[in-house]
Amino acid sequence: MGINELMDPSRINWINSPGPDCDIVISSRVRLARNLKDVPFPHLLSESRAREIINEVYDAFRANPVLSRNAELYILDNLSQEQRKMMVEMHLISPDLSASKKGAAIINQDKTLSIMINEEDHLRIQTVFPGLDPEKAYDLASKVDDVLEEKLDFAFDEKIGYLTACPTNVGTGIRASVMMHLPVLTMMNQIGQIFSTITQLGLVVRGLYGEGTQANGNLYQISNQITLGKSEEDIIQNLIGVARQIITSERKARQNLSGEARIRVEDKILRSYGLLTHARLISSEEALAYISDVRLGVDMGIIKNIKPGDVNQLFIITGPAYIQEVSGKTLSPMERDLSRAEFIKQKMMK
Amino acid sequence: MGINELMDPSRINWINSPGPDCDIVISSRVRLARNLKDVPFPHLLSESRAREIINEVYDAFRANPVLSRNAELYILDNLSQEQRKMMVEMHLISPDLSASKKGAAIINQDKTLSIMINEEDHLRIQTVFPGLDPEKAYDLASKVDDVLEEKLDFAFDEKIGYLTACPTNVGTGIRASVMMHLPVLTMMNQIGQIFSTITQLGLVVRGLYGEGTQANGNLYQISNQITLGKSEEDIIQNLIGVARQIITSERKARQNLSGEARIRVEDKILRSYGLLTHARLISSEEALAYISDVRLGVDMGIIKNIKPGDVNQLFIITGPAYIQEVSGKTLSPMERDLSRAEFIKQKMMK
Repeated sequence: MGINELMDPSRINWINSPGPDCDIVISSRVRLARNLKDVPFPHLLSESRAREIINEVYDAFRANPVLSRNAELYILDNLSQEQRKMMVEMHLISPDLSASKKGAAIINQDKTLSIMINEEDHLRIQTVFPGLDPEKAYDLASKVDDVLEEKLDFAFDEKIGYLTACPTNVGTGIRASVMMHLPVLTMMNQIGQIFSTITQLGLVVRGLYGEGTQANGNLYQISNQITLGKSEEDIIQNLIGVARQIITSERKARQNLSGEARIRVEDKILRSYGLLTHARLISSEEALAYISDVRLGVDMGIIKNIKPGDVNQLFIITGPAYIQEVSGKTLSPMERDLSRAEFIKQKMMK
Repeated sequence: MGINELMDPSRINWINSPGPDCDIVISSRVRLARNLKDVPFPHLLSESRAREIINEVYDAFRANPVLSRNAELYILDNLSQEQRKMMVEMHLISPDLSASKKGAAIINQDKTLSIMINEEDHLRIQTVFPGLDPEKAYDLASKVDDVLEEKLDFAFDEKIGYLTACPTNVGTGIRASVMMHLPVLTMMNQIGQIFSTITQLGLVVRGLYGEGTQANGNLYQISNQITLGKSEEDIIQNLIGVARQIITSERKARQNLSGEARIRVEDKILRSYGLLTHARLISSEEALAYISDVRLGVDMGIIKNIKPGDVNQLFIITGPAYIQEVSGKTLSPMERDLSRAEFIKQKMMK
């Protein structure tokens, strides 16, 4: 395994496998925040104590030979800055963890599981599956939670629930999210209205890389805001219900495209396809926008020679750090744009 | 023949045949302004008198069976507005003539000759050849002039020369011009300096469709300003000399492209190629810009599967009136952009 194995996009389950409603929902994610009892929160830990915790968690996880068989521990301090950034681009770790000198992550082979250690909390158990399937993600996260709890003593209060570094995560410690591709609702300026409704239902909308990031590529992460006073089951069912409504709206918006509006959308899709298959230089922002169009084209049957999974791969492997890592040397911004264009062409022409 | 024959771009000599320096000079054009003695200038003519003049000129021309063998007379009033606009787009007649109810044009099969009748002057003998070859164009124009003069009495003053409706054409009545494709000088912002020098040498720069039009597609028409006090020979040699200097500058600018600048130009060229071969909608302005890039790509060896002549055809056959005529029905602007995109794709993919 090692870092090279991480980079193989064909081994990422949520990118390549079909899932429920995967024409619109790219992936479903669950993360559970857990902390060790009577241990200071990570930002107060010494580096050596942080390292001990990493080992304790890894040992506890390996106690289950089935779950841990194809998983590997990555000590972030042993990786280069580019490698850590790349893991963020691939949604394997959070931006916060990538900046930490104390952090680590246990990642399994098909990337359905990533246990972040010493992020804001001691443990962030993260699971991802393709399509609208937060229940499956919760199942795996819950199983891992049980395995770890057999060996580790979690900070838990009978009245409140799990204790976390930030009060917004206290209680269930769960955040369940879906990554949705909503190009037509975005084009038609219907997205603002929908998101304002979502907020009233206790959900939050974020961009591609989580909190504080922009919705590039028409990709939106929708997740629960509240972790306290609701069961995990309720939180997940609420998310699924809202996601289904948005799916219906996006599908309707696509079906309702007709006449001039449809031709303009087709033109946009085909232009993006032409640019991705011909440009010599492509920036990552541009790439996301064009890839979103091509993905829509594939879903609408306008582009026929590319698999949805291959387009999903493009969303991930065109990030600046990924391109840098793949090339194996330090690149100037222009060299990166050159490599990215070359890379996209190869992927689309294959 | 008839209007359908006019529309066949494979029958236009200056588009399809190679000529001197035709990587940069698309065509060379000469026009001679002539008027009939003791006949009012066209704007003062009645329609019936104008018609008589058309017949007189046509008869005079047909007196030479060799020159007139493959030529046809087009009475503009018999053509639709779209057909007349199309002839302007194809550089067969001037915008002024297309708007006239009194005008006609005698056009030969390979489009090297177009005798406009009742434009601003009674006669405008216009000849066009590929590449930098105004001498060849002048030879043919002169031959036609001689043939017509055998039968017609031209308004001529021993001291001044040929008399014309507008004083700027008095004397030789000649305008010699070259249409140059100068994309890299334009990109590098060197074109302004060059054109200011040209003006000092008694030459004028115009856009694609002559006086008052913009230089779309990086195509520039350079012609003599003065028709009086200089021989036809001098006027033509002056134009050739200046054109050669501009050719050298554009070629040098292309050769000097290196490093980042070259990559950016290649990117521009390949993006335009990608857009022309994929877009569903293309406006005529956009088309000209992209076709210019593709033409540069062909000249620089970056695009290998298209002939320069085919790119030249695209410059002409993407005009709004041409697209309208080819489709055979009235099109909305969007339908025209759809047809144009389809048309370009077919041409480039063949």
